[in-house]
Amino acid sequence: MKIIFSLPGNEALAEKIAVGIHAETGICIHRQFPDGETYLRIESDVRGREAVVVCTLHRPDDKLLPLLFLCQLLRDMGAASVCLVAPYLAYMRQDTRFNPGEAVTSEYFASLLSCAIDRLITIDPHLHRRNSMQEIYSVPCDVLHAAGVISTWIRENIPQALLIGPDSESEQWVSEVARNAGVPYIVLEKIRHGDRDVEVSVPDVEKYKDYTPVLVDDIISTARTMIETVGHILKAGMKPPICIGVHAVFAGDAYRELLASGAERVITCSTIPHESNGIEVAEMIIAVLV
Amino acid sequence: MKIIFSLPGNEALAEKIAVGIHAETGICIHRQFPDGETYLRIESDVRGREAVVVCTLHRPDDKLLPLLFLCQLLRDMGAASVCLVAPYLAYMRQDTRFNPGEAVTSEYFASLLSCAIDRLITIDPHLHRRNSMQEIYSVPCDVLHAAGVISTWIRENIPQALLIGPDSESEQWVSEVARNAGVPYIVLEKIRHGDRDVEVSVPDVEKYKDYTPVLVDDIISTARTMIETVGHILKAGMKPPICIGVHAVFAGDAYRELLASGAERVITCSTIPHESNGIEVAEMIIAVLV
Repeated sequence: MKIIFSLPGNEALAEKIAVGIHAETGICIHRQFPDGETYLRIESDVRGREAVVVCTLHRPDDKLLPLLFLCQLLRDMGAASVCLVAPYLAYMRQDTRFNPGEAVTSEYFASLLSCAIDRLITIDPHLHRRNSMQEIYSVPCDVLHAAGVISTWIRENIPQALLIGPDSESEQWVSEVARNAGVPYIVLEKIRHGDRDVEVSVPDVEKYKDYTPVLVDDIISTARTMIETVGHILKAGMKPPICIGVHAVFAGDAYRELLASGAERVITCSTIPHESNGIEVAEMIIAVLV
Repeated sequence: MKIIFSLPGNEALAEKIAVGIHAETGICIHRQFPDGETYLRIESDVRGREAVVVCTLHRPDDKLLPLLFLCQLLRDMGAASVCLVAPYLAYMRQDTRFNPGEAVTSEYFASLLSCAIDRLITIDPHLHRRNSMQEIYSVPCDVLHAAGVISTWIRENIPQALLIGPDSESEQWVSEVARNAGVPYIVLEKIRHGDRDVEVSVPDVEKYKDYTPVLVDDIISTARTMIETVGHILKAGMKPPICIGVHAVFAGDAYRELLASGAERVITCSTIPHESNGIEVAEMIIAVLV
């Protein structure tokens, strides 16, 4: 029987996974000394067992060390293997040297994690210029996709939805979600009149004026793109849109700003605990862990 | 010629070292993306050169990842070697498994650092139950001691000083500083009347009533021991003491509390930047780097 551990903040998802795969919830005391150092103690017997550690990795810099400590401790205490469930995986952006002298942090981060774990499960990692996680991670990776649960959520919750892609790059992802949800989609068109004069047009406005626009993106961080897209949609005379994100990163005040931009509602998947969570990802993780 | 880099907060010490060893100060851009991830870019040519990275490690959890990134980047860019100057070294306390299931974080931390660097220079690491840094660090370590600069500071700044050791464990360290400073010392005596009834006595009070008591400790974290000792000294009718610490860790409000306890003055070495710094350690580091 597997045994599930979680770093602080991941308890709810860990508990759902434990119930779903009939695993034991391991007991780990995690506290900080007054000087800021981390103390960890495992009170469960992990000898010979497959350990699963749940730790989503937004704002990763102060999360990595306790996570590496826990993985090493599990090995020390005799765990047969350590599988990391990181629904949101950090450091996927800087995947090449855009300018001389830059740290290729996606490689460095992957290398540190790969040394500590035997398997990684994550959801929609931001694979930019890479085709596969195995280009940077030396351990087996299960890459799950939230498109399915997002499609289902749209179908069950939004009558007469219209999916909107903010630009042509998003078409592939938006069209897939739309097809699975059984709803139409459009992609905003950029019409360039000059270097700085770009008009954004919403096609078929008349046809879809009674529809509820739905924007979908993988990561909502500063929310700049989504806020702009909300603006284009409202300016075109459409209804206030529903904004859906896979990962609720929300840098600074981005969540309040997105709500204030005129969006009808903001909904995210539960990859990062946040008040906007409304689409559950536990079942997808359970499916690959059983 | 060596090239010196520093993580944020260590610029002043790095600059002193650079001047002292006639090294170049390397240019490294360090910033955080809105989502909290670290961006690093080295703008100096480090190919074939000995790089020195200055990064003191109090409150270490969010410092380690940027530090590991910088060390890896220096290697990527062709540095011949990476020497870490960490005047305060974290994770020295949990050096054994006091209770079953505890993370031996001093080993785990040492292992992570040892993979990233070629040499470590530190000052008075808190070696509890270990005899040598090489028991946990696999790279060469230069362990420097602040006793010398503290003795000099006392001799030059405190007329008629009396060094005070809070307990018998401190005697060896206190006696060494006292001898080098050319001043007398006493050690407080615990007289046990019962399990919970411990009287602390200050010996030779009459003899030293015109002296300025000086307390010295390696780390001031919660400052509990020092605050108690200040209390014993004042209760015994001695002058308000000068409190000297090597490492100004100061958890929470410890610094204000120590000042409020009746100490005449609080002085620390510059291993951790803090307003109480008054004893410079740069020269010690320069001496082993030239």
